[in-house]
Amino acid sequence: MPHITIPQNLFGIRGLMAFRPAAAKPLNELVDVLLRQPNSLTSGERELIATYVSSENDCYYCQTIHGAIAAHDLEGNEDLVRQVKRDFQAADISDKLKALLVIAGKVQRGGKHVTASDVEQARRQGATEMEIHDTVLIAAAFCMYNRYVDGLATLAPEDPEFYRNRAAQICRDGYIQVNKEFQATQSK
Amino acid sequence: MPHITIPQNLFGIRGLMAFRPAAAKPLNELVDVLLRQPNSLTSGERELIATYVSSENDCYYCQTIHGAIAAHDLEGNEDLVRQVKRDFQAADISDKLKALLVIAGKVQRGGKHVTASDVEQARRQGATEMEIHDTVLIAAAFCMYNRYVDGLATLAPEDPEFYRNRAAQICRDGYIQVNKEFQATQSK
Repeated sequence: MPHITIPQNLFGIRGLMAFRPAAAKPLNELVDVLLRQPNSLTSGERELIATYVSSENDCYYCQTIHGAIAAHDLEGNEDLVRQVKRDFQAADISDKLKALLVIAGKVQRGGKHVTASDVEQARRQGATEMEIHDTVLIAAAFCMYNRYVDGLATLAPEDPEFYRNRAAQICRDGYIQVNKEFQATQSK
Repeated sequence: MPHITIPQNLFGIRGLMAFRPAAAKPLNELVDVLLRQPNSLTSGERELIATYVSSENDCYYCQTIHGAIAAHDLEGNEDLVRQVKRDFQAADISDKLKALLVIAGKVQRGGKHVTASDVEQARRQGATEMEIHDTVLIAAAFCMYNRYVDGLATLAPEDPEFYRNRAAQICRDGYIQVNKEFQATQSK
């Protein structure tokens, strides 16, 4: 049961966003900038970073929704998402993304774990300054979203179809638009 | 040395905000909503929560700037800020704030550490649903800001006057305004 009374018992972060719309606005903008807006990393790659960090933080809702979005971006490849969470070094992804996932995993444990040599390794695999920056910020941001969702003990559905349906919406419209429509429904 | 090339070697999160203005906007709005906009918790109390979490995450820049802002909000009481970081149970703060700091400390370790009994204890000390929510989100957000600042190895000045001066500006104008002026300077 959630630690606070969430309108209509909505799932995961959505209930919290309905509870606190003033905070929901920048939270949605941030995730949209980081994961959906144009970038030299594909949305699929960035959603994989978010999924991996959420999995390391053991956040069921976040790893499942962002895993579903990553799979949708990757033409339905749910096996690849599972493999990245289990052992990304053995996954069929680029060496650059592997080097960025190493950095993301360090950030998840704490910012100071990232070494100059981790960053150098990512550069050698072709990562740009912006890609290194965004990887650190995506990983850091999911250390927030995961703690927000679990720190208030929100509920998460088990049915994978729930996540696949929402993933399709987010891939089509982005986080800001989907949540604007949702907020409009809530305020009626 | 920072892991990426930051304009003019600016300190802490400010250099990162100059590097990535699209992300800076929601990051500034979020911290302003959580720490400066009207709330039943004072700004001083909320800045103390941010300072405590940043100290637990061992982030020098964040704990020092938010500690300076908390002290400014608390009429210059830097000793109280130090005491909260060292042992908040022994500090001269309300029992409600102590119960909220227990929750914040649990969030810092991971969202699932927060128990129904921690939340019940905060309620018994008079904490509202919104105060419990905001405490969790402030703690979660600083797990992001701290990792962002340290994960990219940004620099932080040692001189306490640097932090006191900036604290006075932020207490007067808020995070959004101070950073808007700063962005305007950067783009000239």
